[in-house]
Amino acid sequence: MSTTERDLRWWAAANYLTVAQIYLRDNPLLRDELTAGHIKPRLLGHWGTSPGLSMIYTVLNRLIRETGQDCLYVTGPGHGGPALVANAYLEGTYSEIYPEVSRDLAGLTRLVRRFSTPGGIPSHVSVQTPGSVHEGGELGYALAHATGAAFDHRDLLVACVIGDGEAETGPLAASWKAPSFLDPRRDGTVLPILHLNGYKISGPTVFGRASDEDLTGFLRAQGWDPVVVSGDDPAAVYADLHARMTEAQARIADLRAGTATRWPAIVLRTPKGWTGPATVDGVPVTGTHRSHQVPLSGVRENPEHLALLAEWLRSYRPDELFDADGALVADVAALAPQGDKRMSATPYADGGRLLRPLPLPPLDKYAVQVHGPGSVEHGNTAPIGELLRDVYAATTTEDGGGTFRLFCPDETASNRLQAVFEETDRCLRAEVLPTDEHLSPHGRVMEVLSEHLCEGWLEGYLLTGRHGLFATYEAFAMVSASMLIQHAKWLQHAATLPWRSSVASLNVLLTSTCWRNDHNGFSHQGPGLIDTAIPLSPDVVRVWLPPDANTALSITRHCLESRDHVNLIVVDKQPHTQFLTLEEAERHCAAGASVWDWAGTEDGDQPDVVLAAAGDVPTQEVLAAAKLLREYVPYLRVRVVNVVDLMGLLPPADHPHGFPDARFAELFTEDADVVFAFHGYPRAVHQLLHGRVNPGRFHVRGFSEQGTTTTPFDMVVLNRMSRYHLVLEALRRARRAPERGAELAAHCRAMLDRHEAYVREHFEDMPEIRDWQWA
Amino acid sequence: MSTTERDLRWWAAANYLTVAQIYLRDNPLLRDELTAGHIKPRLLGHWGTSPGLSMIYTVLNRLIRETGQDCLYVTGPGHGGPALVANAYLEGTYSEIYPEVSRDLAGLTRLVRRFSTPGGIPSHVSVQTPGSVHEGGELGYALAHATGAAFDHRDLLVACVIGDGEAETGPLAASWKAPSFLDPRRDGTVLPILHLNGYKISGPTVFGRASDEDLTGFLRAQGWDPVVVSGDDPAAVYADLHARMTEAQARIADLRAGTATRWPAIVLRTPKGWTGPATVDGVPVTGTHRSHQVPLSGVRENPEHLALLAEWLRSYRPDELFDADGALVADVAALAPQGDKRMSATPYADGGRLLRPLPLPPLDKYAVQVHGPGSVEHGNTAPIGELLRDVYAATTTEDGGGTFRLFCPDETASNRLQAVFEETDRCLRAEVLPTDEHLSPHGRVMEVLSEHLCEGWLEGYLLTGRHGLFATYEAFAMVSASMLIQHAKWLQHAATLPWRSSVASLNVLLTSTCWRNDHNGFSHQGPGLIDTAIPLSPDVVRVWLPPDANTALSITRHCLESRDHVNLIVVDKQPHTQFLTLEEAERHCAAGASVWDWAGTEDGDQPDVVLAAAGDVPTQEVLAAAKLLREYVPYLRVRVVNVVDLMGLLPPADHPHGFPDARFAELFTEDADVVFAFHGYPRAVHQLLHGRVNPGRFHVRGFSEQGTTTTPFDMVVLNRMSRYHLVLEALRRARRAPERGAELAAHCRAMLDRHEAYVREHFEDMPEIRDWQWA
Repeated sequence: MSTTERDLRWWAAANYLTVAQIYLRDNPLLRDELTAGHIKPRLLGHWGTSPGLSMIYTVLNRLIRETGQDCLYVTGPGHGGPALVANAYLEGTYSEIYPEVSRDLAGLTRLVRRFSTPGGIPSHVSVQTPGSVHEGGELGYALAHATGAAFDHRDLLVACVIGDGEAETGPLAASWKAPSFLDPRRDGTVLPILHLNGYKISGPTVFGRASDEDLTGFLRAQGWDPVVVSGDDPAAVYADLHARMTEAQARIADLRAGTATRWPAIVLRTPKGWTGPATVDGVPVTGTHRSHQVPLSGVRENPEHLALLAEWLRSYRPDELFDADGALVADVAALAPQGDKRMSATPYADGGRLLRPLPLPPLDKYAVQVHGPGSVEHGNTAPIGELLRDVYAATTTEDGGGTFRLFCPDETASNRLQAVFEETDRCLRAEVLPTDEHLSPHGRVMEVLSEHLCEGWLEGYLLTGRHGLFATYEAFAMVSASMLIQHAKWLQHAATLPWRSSVASLNVLLTSTCWRNDHNGFSHQGPGLIDTAIPLSPDVVRVWLPPDANTALSITRHCLESRDHVNLIVVDKQPHTQFLTLEEAERHCAAGASVWDWAGTEDGDQPDVVLAAAGDVPTQEVLAAAKLLREYVPYLRVRVVNVVDLMGLLPPADHPHGFPDARFAELFTEDADVVFAFHGYPRAVHQLLHGRVNPGRFHVRGFSEQGTTTTPFDMVVLNRMSRYHLVLEALRRARRAPERGAELAAHCRAMLDRHEAYVREHFEDMPEIRDWQWA
Repeated sequence: MSTTERDLRWWAAANYLTVAQIYLRDNPLLRDELTAGHIKPRLLGHWGTSPGLSMIYTVLNRLIRETGQDCLYVTGPGHGGPALVANAYLEGTYSEIYPEVSRDLAGLTRLVRRFSTPGGIPSHVSVQTPGSVHEGGELGYALAHATGAAFDHRDLLVACVIGDGEAETGPLAASWKAPSFLDPRRDGTVLPILHLNGYKISGPTVFGRASDEDLTGFLRAQGWDPVVVSGDDPAAVYADLHARMTEAQARIADLRAGTATRWPAIVLRTPKGWTGPATVDGVPVTGTHRSHQVPLSGVRENPEHLALLAEWLRSYRPDELFDADGALVADVAALAPQGDKRMSATPYADGGRLLRPLPLPPLDKYAVQVHGPGSVEHGNTAPIGELLRDVYAATTTEDGGGTFRLFCPDETASNRLQAVFEETDRCLRAEVLPTDEHLSPHGRVMEVLSEHLCEGWLEGYLLTGRHGLFATYEAFAMVSASMLIQHAKWLQHAATLPWRSSVASLNVLLTSTCWRNDHNGFSHQGPGLIDTAIPLSPDVVRVWLPPDANTALSITRHCLESRDHVNLIVVDKQPHTQFLTLEEAERHCAAGASVWDWAGTEDGDQPDVVLAAAGDVPTQEVLAAAKLLREYVPYLRVRVVNVVDLMGLLPPADHPHGFPDARFAELFTEDADVVFAFHGYPRAVHQLLHGRVNPGRFHVRGFSEQGTTTTPFDMVVLNRMSRYHLVLEALRRARRAPERGAELAAHCRAMLDRHEAYVREHFEDMPEIRDWQWA
């Protein structure tokens, strides 16, 4: 049997098992005559893209056998799940991971039954699919994930299949810029295979109807060196694809040697539903949108459809592909690479197997020296930049690669993390001009003005066993919110699979926050990602609101050390009043929330009112409010509480970080009113507090969607979270009406009136307000 | 004075006013010697892109004068706000809208003072900027907005400037596919001007460093016919740009005549910060990233910088541009087009001026015939499709255009809205094959597999005075969540500007919901857009949860008639039990929530427990629970409440739809426990309820981020919202312990156990569970 024959038989076996998964609940090898009773009660799955996916898989397997290349397969058309499951099963990996799905008739029966079945596996490529780092649900991220996987993995080839539909999405469209960020000296190869069968669910696609000239022109213009493989004759397509992939490997060698500049890419055109039924009920199916999902829908009721299905299945000659026991015949099985070289078994797709702990230096070096609360001002993110600089230094390898990267939409310096540039540069594979700063094709700070690419690259980087951080303007983090959701879902399900290893957490630093985007205005003011994150799996999501620089440092280290989480760290880049020494910060962060005795006026008795804060600007305002209360009404017993770990507010049954009831009462008492200044939307706190004792006593102030181009102080006034608003609320809510309370209230109202008058008259000349400091 | 001289002086005036806005708080025409006292205390604004923006504006003005063309200017690099304000001021529009900013020295002083100043206007192009439909904050949507504005506006030319940074984003990258969706027969022109000055904030860009060949290749491959204009000599660039724009107009005429196929596009390369200080402190500034924002930062403290600024300002010769009163000299002012032809005054940028009410037929024709609750099953979205079909019919114009469009990522049929295809087709400007269904270059159902494009096109369509609806899978609506947020912010601020007219609401139909994406699995299950919408402006956002088809119809009509809102309509496409006749539905929707007497067992006394639902699947489970309670414990007084208008739960002080306290008590009583089945994440309801009487008595079940490929019934079990869970909760919470309560509880637990056993053993064969119906 020639190699070609062998491989086309593998392809037939993969196609056979794909169809079997979609239709059959029994009789998986058609050893009995096919009857309606063998058919699943509910037909689900996507046939259309599957034969093409398996053809690519087959050719890659041959390439791996020929060259020993490490390959990762990223399935953009992830609805072709049954094809990937079929190939993983043929390679043996599936049975190694799921032993009950053995390589025999019983296992085959389980394989087809579990597909797209309640209690079984999803119809899409998913976390359950061996060899995948990419969920096949929400489209758009295949090429970004593939690119992230290739960064710093010089020996890896990431074959990234991109389907018709995916190619219409925004994130995918942006991802074509990868050649400007992939460094042949240090990065692996991303081999995009734009697999066009002409259609999405029910309509044709832009690229599907584009000419070869336009498609190759499009790719060439962005740094690729594309070739087109096209046809419907399997042997011809197989041979052509193999030749092109072999050429691509040669071209990659040229690239690494510096004798070529463009990365190879392949456009593959094959019929949708290739090898499926040509027509059904007199209507063309193969090659049209009608083969997208289940081409024969009436097989249980319609004997003609059933006969067509039997004919279709038998066209792959299952009896010649599987032996008497139901195992793949040996000469076909010989295509599969060995062990970890199998794409379904590659450790690159189970990144935890490659993960090494991040060498994190002690934090003392970066700590802000604080001699008493309020004694100094400092940017809250700059020390994180210094920490990351040294993380870069400690993780850079000899070939210029490494195991840590920072991703940021052109805001590294704006977000005050520029210390990293002492260690590495911005990455851009382009001519470097004398006026450029910190720019190099070998740089490893990833700046691209696309939150989608930053997030997607990082996800790909993490899932293949590395560490990283995505730093972004808080408001624009919503751009990639849906990606964060999908990643959280991935981690949630991955944790239930014993064979998936732990990966580094997805860490998102939200800075340039709503309160301090006063200069950029309302479009830049939005803390909504907190609300997006809260309802996601409590086993995955954490939200951190450090009040100052040393707490931010401590939290960042914790997040970089953590595994399998999505961490939001919300802290502003501007100079802020500092409160805690590093030692105090470490204690405070470990506790998640603390009473700040030094700021309150408790006398051992129950407090009359609690002032609580979560976030840096809220903390500043709460402390200013506490100061006013101390000055005017020192006999009022005020407690000041600071919350760093927002999820601690949730009841412990609802989140592993939820403070136990007793601890919650130690912080907030059981009955005192709490005036709570919160970084984000106030009702986010109320949703967390449901289930706590008497949650109605919490009076939350926060960002109330009021903003414009203004001053930081005006922002807290507009949103009624200013020190004066907090004092007024505290006076209203306190258990006792203090003696000079009316005087203090009058003072606060006067200050707010004065502010309003200033705003109206000559706001820009208002140093009294503009430069107001707590200390 | 030649036309060229006149226009270059206009450009000089625009540049002068741009610099003046960034720096000056007084002495706006430099009639006194410039001192530090004339300088703003805080220097904010973006100079780098501004001269290029004004050059394009100037040339377009000449074109308008020469041809009478209606033009809309979309400013992708919206941080160049001062340039657009300057041009609007020079055209006189600014003073017409803001009379205090008069066309004299006093007005000029106000103009420069208000820019990027607390209490003034944002530094970005914003809702306050006359002539804009595009906020200059979050990047990526310029070309999508421009394309939406051009749909069905045959006589309009939308000049869309796209900056270096924007061109790296995903949504913008997807937007280049516009030529595949713009029909020369009926749509206006989108003229992209890819304006490259090489940099984003601090680094170079991919396109900025790309060759002309690659840039034009990139555009050509996607249906554009690009030309490059490049240089730093103003007169030469001006002449070249004018010639190219004139050519573009000719090419558009060819397109409309059918003798050309590609839409014109322009690549414009000019220096960043063009005409600014070449070097500052010995470092190159113009032409580098250093001119991105404020090139001279030390003018208040550093006399050298101050002198440089004075020199820079005087280089524009303000004395020759403005007369003694401070008005633009007449021969330069003559460039401005007249009246509504001015881009800053075009009604296309104030869409409400063009808006005509949508002719909406009576709903009876589409109503599902319901003879008693639960008597019939029907898809909840199909009637909406029929309504939209007739809306298309009633709004299509003779030239094939119209005033309504449906936008949907290739899911119109999947979402059961396919009735629209009886009236119009899917739009794709490509060869139509015999196997295609409902496809035409003249079709007006916009299907593109990009939520960003659907949302962005619709926003552009609405803000230029038309109507539309975006229908999408619920989970993937999060892809464009940030766009919805920005649009809500736009509407919120627009409502405060008397000169902005009302526009049609942004209506988003979320279907294929979490509860019924059982077959597609966890990645397709996510109701998070509700959580994103809740904290946005209460004056803008509404969330609707119709329980069945007739309520969905009623709500859809309301949303299509409404103005200036963002409406989320959450309803599933699958067959569901129907409850209300159209008449009942209309009453129920108008009320926002009602007690469903027929489903409860109240006897005029206070109910023992309230069962409430919001959403179609929750309603089904609540009614099934009520039925179980009626059967087993008929003497328990159960009230059933249905909520359609989610925002009604908010206290009236917090949302205009908030039910007054008395009405809230009429629905939910003041003290009975409420078992609430909710479509989305349960704590979303808890956040709304804060501020209501005793909110702790609400026990909410909803989507708890538990999902997989399974059955609809298993979905409600997994998330503990099944009828059995609701009954068990109701029994726990009821005021009285009913006699046969233990028996009923045992029944419920047995049913859940039975379900679990079935799931484990042979879930796919479980008709008892799979086909369980309430009725």
